[in-house]
Amino acid sequence: MKHTTVAAYAAPAPGAPLEKTTIARRAPGAHDVVIDIHYAGICHSDIHMVRGHWGEKRYPIVPGHEIAGVVAEVGPGVTRHAVGDRVGVGCLVDSCRECENCRAGLEQYCTGELGMVGTYAATGRDGQPTQGGYSRRIVVDENYVLSIPDALPLDAAAPLLCAGITLYSPLAHWKAGPGQKVAVVGLGGLGHLGVKIAHAMGAEVTVLSQSLRKRADGLRLGADHYHATADPATFRELAGRFDLILNTVSADLDLDAYLGLLRTDGTLVQLGLPETPYALSAFALLRGRRSLAGSAMGGIPETQEMLDFCARHGITAEIELIPADYVNEAYERVLASDVRYRFVIDAATI
Amino acid sequence: MKHTTVAAYAAPAPGAPLEKTTIARRAPGAHDVVIDIHYAGICHSDIHMVRGHWGEKRYPIVPGHEIAGVVAEVGPGVTRHAVGDRVGVGCLVDSCRECENCRAGLEQYCTGELGMVGTYAATGRDGQPTQGGYSRRIVVDENYVLSIPDALPLDAAAPLLCAGITLYSPLAHWKAGPGQKVAVVGLGGLGHLGVKIAHAMGAEVTVLSQSLRKRADGLRLGADHYHATADPATFRELAGRFDLILNTVSADLDLDAYLGLLRTDGTLVQLGLPETPYALSAFALLRGRRSLAGSAMGGIPETQEMLDFCARHGITAEIELIPADYVNEAYERVLASDVRYRFVIDAATI
Repeated sequence: MKHTTVAAYAAPAPGAPLEKTTIARRAPGAHDVVIDIHYAGICHSDIHMVRGHWGEKRYPIVPGHEIAGVVAEVGPGVTRHAVGDRVGVGCLVDSCRECENCRAGLEQYCTGELGMVGTYAATGRDGQPTQGGYSRRIVVDENYVLSIPDALPLDAAAPLLCAGITLYSPLAHWKAGPGQKVAVVGLGGLGHLGVKIAHAMGAEVTVLSQSLRKRADGLRLGADHYHATADPATFRELAGRFDLILNTVSADLDLDAYLGLLRTDGTLVQLGLPETPYALSAFALLRGRRSLAGSAMGGIPETQEMLDFCARHGITAEIELIPADYVNEAYERVLASDVRYRFVIDAATI
Repeated sequence: MKHTTVAAYAAPAPGAPLEKTTIARRAPGAHDVVIDIHYAGICHSDIHMVRGHWGEKRYPIVPGHEIAGVVAEVGPGVTRHAVGDRVGVGCLVDSCRECENCRAGLEQYCTGELGMVGTYAATGRDGQPTQGGYSRRIVVDENYVLSIPDALPLDAAAPLLCAGITLYSPLAHWKAGPGQKVAVVGLGGLGHLGVKIAHAMGAEVTVLSQSLRKRADGLRLGADHYHATADPATFRELAGRFDLILNTVSADLDLDAYLGLLRTDGTLVQLGLPETPYALSAFALLRGRRSLAGSAMGGIPETQEMLDFCARHGITAEIELIPADYVNEAYERVLASDVRYRFVIDAATI
């Protein structure tokens, strides 16, 4: 069996613009699924990664971990997916499969030697660098391939594979639901899905955004309330209000002020990775037994659960579909928060 | 009815040594209990408070919120305690009694207008400053007076009222027990009770202390393991080990390093108040859905539960009993961590 060559968009070096190229994909093994990629979402972390913000990587890097497509071919041992199935791939394509977390379906927290293998810019079991979704095809072990329900259009479902599960997982873990007051900080690619999912779970949802610029959108997406964090009155008015706050904003944040918005036993969950450490006073935590937690993506079983949940509730991302050669401009617009709410690359244009 | 005058030790001004004085105690109201104080523990926070580290207060301040004594008199409406009963008073002597937290027995997190009324250096319902346990008598509403079981000697039970409940409450809340690995950071007044209580709850207990100086003590008190945090190997060796870490150390700490000792879904609970903010990277939280939480003392029902638990398990503080005129020297020794493990003032010497 031979590697095949597929078209892709890659960053050739840290900070360099993405350009069209070709990459090798492995020939499918017994348990591999070959996926014709139809759509790939652009995640903020793609930009961090290709620009080298998160440490040294091997280049070229083909980013993309919000992948939706159709099965083109399966290895002889594959039982979970068949040719023609609508499928997705998210942030991880492998893990040790043996540690306690992998066995519990928390592959994103794999503690084995292999660790969670990221969909791109990581090193696979075979020692080769993984390459992501800004490409025409990808080959992934069947256990890391999700089924996309028919009710979800592939283009608008793609961002669910990272942004969707990143919000769904903490909402499920901290039991968002009727009677719970949930705040979502930031109404961007992550936040807008957080609003939709939290609303569908039955929680009372508040958006905390810098300004009221996107207020109409927020309410349309399912928010019950919308407040501007640039207004100091917000922090007085909402003090002690929330059971759960999901922070989707990677920029530096006055954590103490946000912790003050939690009620007793409330939790502020950090979903992004700011580049500098936070300053935090213990007082904000002690007063009301509050918690500051982190959550990263979700495991494979929970990602499937999320897709099924979204299908039942008609939830997809709000997207702007773009051709692949627009990707560098799209990156600039992501950095300027100028997208409502997720760019998705039409992989047919790669 | 008239106020009565009782002997006490008070700080006359911020930073000034404590000196013998007299203070007024209110005449008992219908629901008040007059307690002959037998013993008062010295808590590290007494020192912070009288020295003005936690904001401006009214002086003189009589510190002390680890109070054990015997009921001398009760108001006509008192039903919970009787003359001659062995009783204790902890960190709070009143709260609004109406908010959700007060109704749930979480008086320490009272959100009402009155708020939690500290045993000293606070303002009571009557507008008067509260004065603490370094005195011969105190008058407290019966609902904020605990019963000290006969099995517990009053002197060694006194520190349970603050140090004991401060450790018991998070251990109970985060469900320490058989199969759980609990670490206690710091083997001082708080930590040594954390070791005893966590051990009695059935958890596997590890002490994380700067050095191995108190190792023999730690193991005798119930620890299964003892590691020096000054040794970098500790952080490598214990990475991902603990379900729960209780940090009793108020000094600045490398939180990221300690968070790295938690397993997936583990919680690091901060019990003290450092004077400077912590630096914290979100990465340490995201990797393993870890939490950093705070916990402050405990509510009244839980404090009674703790006393009963300690009586069943024969748990008291390790104390050094001192005369009142030793208090200033004792403060210096507390600051130098030179006490095993709690000073208790013999109130007969006041």
